[in-house]
Amino acid sequence: MPEQPELTIQGWGPRPATPGDESPDGVLTKAARRYLTRELGWEPRATPPAAVEEIRLAPCRLPEEDRAALAGLLGEDHVRTDRDARLRRTGGKSYLDLLRRREGDASDAPDAVALPGTTEETAALLALCSERGVVVVPFGGGTSVVGGLAGVDPDDRPVLAVDLSRMASVQALDVPSSLVTVGPGMRGPALEQALAREGLTLGHLPQSWEYATLGGYAATRSAGQSSTGVGRFDELVAGLTLATPSGVLELGHPPASAAGPDLLGLALGSEGTLGVITGLTLRVRPKPTASSYEGWSFRTWAAGLAALQQLARHDLLPDVVRLSDTDETRANLLMAAGAGARALRGSLRARGRGEGCLLVVGWEGVPDLVRARVRAASSLLRDGGAVRLGRRVGDSWRRHRFEAPYLRDRLLDGGLLVETLETAATWTALPAVYDATRRALQESLARGGHRPLVMAHVSHGYATGASLYFTVIADRDDALPIQQWLSAKRAATDALLAAGGTLTHHHAVGADHRPWLEREVGPLGVEVLRAVKQRLDPHGVCNPGVLLPD
Amino acid sequence: MPEQPELTIQGWGPRPATPGDESPDGVLTKAARRYLTRELGWEPRATPPAAVEEIRLAPCRLPEEDRAALAGLLGEDHVRTDRDARLRRTGGKSYLDLLRRREGDASDAPDAVALPGTTEETAALLALCSERGVVVVPFGGGTSVVGGLAGVDPDDRPVLAVDLSRMASVQALDVPSSLVTVGPGMRGPALEQALAREGLTLGHLPQSWEYATLGGYAATRSAGQSSTGVGRFDELVAGLTLATPSGVLELGHPPASAAGPDLLGLALGSEGTLGVITGLTLRVRPKPTASSYEGWSFRTWAAGLAALQQLARHDLLPDVVRLSDTDETRANLLMAAGAGARALRGSLRARGRGEGCLLVVGWEGVPDLVRARVRAASSLLRDGGAVRLGRRVGDSWRRHRFEAPYLRDRLLDGGLLVETLETAATWTALPAVYDATRRALQESLARGGHRPLVMAHVSHGYATGASLYFTVIADRDDALPIQQWLSAKRAATDALLAAGGTLTHHHAVGADHRPWLEREVGPLGVEVLRAVKQRLDPHGVCNPGVLLPD
Repeated sequence: MPEQPELTIQGWGPRPATPGDESPDGVLTKAARRYLTRELGWEPRATPPAAVEEIRLAPCRLPEEDRAALAGLLGEDHVRTDRDARLRRTGGKSYLDLLRRREGDASDAPDAVALPGTTEETAALLALCSERGVVVVPFGGGTSVVGGLAGVDPDDRPVLAVDLSRMASVQALDVPSSLVTVGPGMRGPALEQALAREGLTLGHLPQSWEYATLGGYAATRSAGQSSTGVGRFDELVAGLTLATPSGVLELGHPPASAAGPDLLGLALGSEGTLGVITGLTLRVRPKPTASSYEGWSFRTWAAGLAALQQLARHDLLPDVVRLSDTDETRANLLMAAGAGARALRGSLRARGRGEGCLLVVGWEGVPDLVRARVRAASSLLRDGGAVRLGRRVGDSWRRHRFEAPYLRDRLLDGGLLVETLETAATWTALPAVYDATRRALQESLARGGHRPLVMAHVSHGYATGASLYFTVIADRDDALPIQQWLSAKRAATDALLAAGGTLTHHHAVGADHRPWLEREVGPLGVEVLRAVKQRLDPHGVCNPGVLLPD
Repeated sequence: MPEQPELTIQGWGPRPATPGDESPDGVLTKAARRYLTRELGWEPRATPPAAVEEIRLAPCRLPEEDRAALAGLLGEDHVRTDRDARLRRTGGKSYLDLLRRREGDASDAPDAVALPGTTEETAALLALCSERGVVVVPFGGGTSVVGGLAGVDPDDRPVLAVDLSRMASVQALDVPSSLVTVGPGMRGPALEQALAREGLTLGHLPQSWEYATLGGYAATRSAGQSSTGVGRFDELVAGLTLATPSGVLELGHPPASAAGPDLLGLALGSEGTLGVITGLTLRVRPKPTASSYEGWSFRTWAAGLAALQQLARHDLLPDVVRLSDTDETRANLLMAAGAGARALRGSLRARGRGEGCLLVVGWEGVPDLVRARVRAASSLLRDGGAVRLGRRVGDSWRRHRFEAPYLRDRLLDGGLLVETLETAATWTALPAVYDATRRALQESLARGGHRPLVMAHVSHGYATGASLYFTVIADRDDALPIQQWLSAKRAATDALLAAGGTLTHHHAVGADHRPWLEREVGPLGVEVLRAVKQRLDPHGVCNPGVLLPD
């Protein structure tokens, strides 16, 4: 297998959006730069990150006897306390994480890194850490955007990052049952490569696909860009091994069971607070033999939502469905460079749609069924007032689907605040959630007569509702950048919960959302989670900084 | 709304399969009677149930002060201790339940019956019972076939059946979001009637549909006959209210959430051990505008399974899929009377298939998609060696889909043992689970040189596997009928678990399966469930006789 790419310490990836041009402006069209300057009051300026060598780490607090005990368990090579090992497992990739790292701050680094190779080693490690009072933070791809790797412990104990990259292979493949068993540290591209040899695919493609791990998807209840068709990651997990300080749980019984409450669903979304996921059995499917991606345009956001809701209730949603609001459609048209964007602009003008709302849909499967589904859905879309823009728009979206986080690095270099947040609501509540979240972000981030750019799209559809994915771009407050975003995030979260949205649709709770968990599941719900944690992790060493409120 | 039918105290329902003929032979064709006599060594004999007036009940043990406190909470009319009220909430409808009731034994009757009208009343009732040490057994339709209403308490405290029939209406309907909110005591027919007025359907149709309640489906993780298409009941529940002795939980956030582990999945399948389900929000869909039910025939069981597995992995399974093994196909042909059966026999002969394995498939939805799915699946079925028998077979199955439990009453009258059990396994494990279960039942129930009739069908299909539903008919051991079945059930359960089957696919754990729960979820899994129960039901008053092993 070829070497896998690594995330950079202070950003997403090394890949420049425009190869050879490293300036922040190089990734923006002139029109986009003019637009952002005018709208946001942004003055393009160079705000480069501190040099990696200058990033500050606290000294390692792991007592030598604990380190030695861990090394005795895993081997000297698999317990590391060096600067690079610790720095590469520090935090995740939220805007706040990047701000800290760019400012030269890694005070939240783990004290050491352990790399167990098996479920048994992981279980032994957890028992040892529980006994010795060492906090354990599982580390998969390091792509959390909600502070899922925060490692903050109320008792200030030493923190061990448990890196799962040594458990990253296919363990078993049961082709007749469409099941593959994998290690939690495996990434999507490596799994897809292995499955492709058998004509199979998993089909889970979130934006973090190049770096995130399968164990991480399970721990955070991820949803991929095709999840409307293939299902949320939850739905792809048929079995799971969870190593806990109290022993190992083998959960799930495919294809289905009625033997009591669903314990597998307790491990999914547990974010390392109950233990470490050390194995996964996933549902795979034959590689689609037909696919069709295309663009459509609606005059208004309301018309687009109404049409998607019609598709949803008739079970005609495509596998990929992304409806951008007016602001996102306009920004995409302005900011996208190249032939695809030119084609789209031309296509829209030709159809008498200056901007409106862009819908990207994607269909995959066997040819006859793809054809029948496309035909039935297209008819409903036309009834809903949509105009077909054709395949170039769909294919362009597909080619660029993983690029936004790379672009973010470049915009941060130029003095901008760039962050996303997401929620979901029923079709009935969706318009109110959209309005309330937008308003809260716009008001909180207003500066000197200028408002931020708040864009949104529906990213996943269900019979009962859909998710909303917001992207915010604003002029950064260079004096208090962290507070600037914390205030906006707080206002947006309060607003979306009050309007009936869920705290998170696919990014998990982490440290960032935990003050609101009780609003989502109620005080007694939190108590149930605490009771489960108490049974499995009696000394509270498993990722104590996330999920459960203090 | 018209009066709803009532289950009889000693059997399923009053409806005779052949109106006007009450003899056990009246429901069997002559050929079937000859066949059963020859195969099973059965001597048709009249073994009628004891008169209802003679059924023995223990005196009510609920202290008057507790009764009065409950009456203070709910009103005098809604707390009952009379014989009929208690008798009608005694146990469920398993073969063992029916044997006891037919023998005149209702020693497992609850001491009293309470009928709360709201979530608040139910929560207050639970707090009161927890404080006073009164066991609470929720009662919906009373159709459990696994001892789910056993009410056996290790501490021998008084038992209160909590009848949910006063919470049986539609509370809210959100058409755009395809969601309906209902009381737990509502039955399928009443809900379908209410939904039909809006052009909607739930589509959950288990064999117990005429009597079972929506709350019961959730508490037991039911699967309907169309669940391959519409999903298991689990998948139809978007939200749920659970009243517990420690307070009320509001669970689920449609359409989807990543905010921590799935607590809704803990309430589903909790079988009354954590509290009482007092409200449900369910996903509904437009009534299908096209449907197609048809029969196919395979030469062998193995060929049938292989073809279904091909459909499954290509996402081409029909909404209803039922593949009978050779013995079930033969027995159905022999035992079914009327034009449908004659047509099927003729059709099979005409196609050169004496018997083989019968497959019934059903498709529902919008016409274009039904057509495309039928076409794609039919092509795979033909490739797998199946011969199409046409719609009459499918329509006949559809008409008779709820009849088996009525027939069982009549066969019991004639001296037979009749019971079913079910499991599920991956496609890879399925043949071994089938063989092992069949062999265990055949060996355990062999008597005087005769073997029982053990029939099976695949009743629900998934990408990763399928369920197996076994029906057993044997000559009853009139001296020790309960032990006869307990031995067979024990042998079958041990065998199916050892071969990789799940303890239950859609009948739940109840009292009957709980000795094996640890084999399904492991000792630590049981401990997690205990921890949750301890938090919500600290005095263990919630249905202590089921689910969790002693």
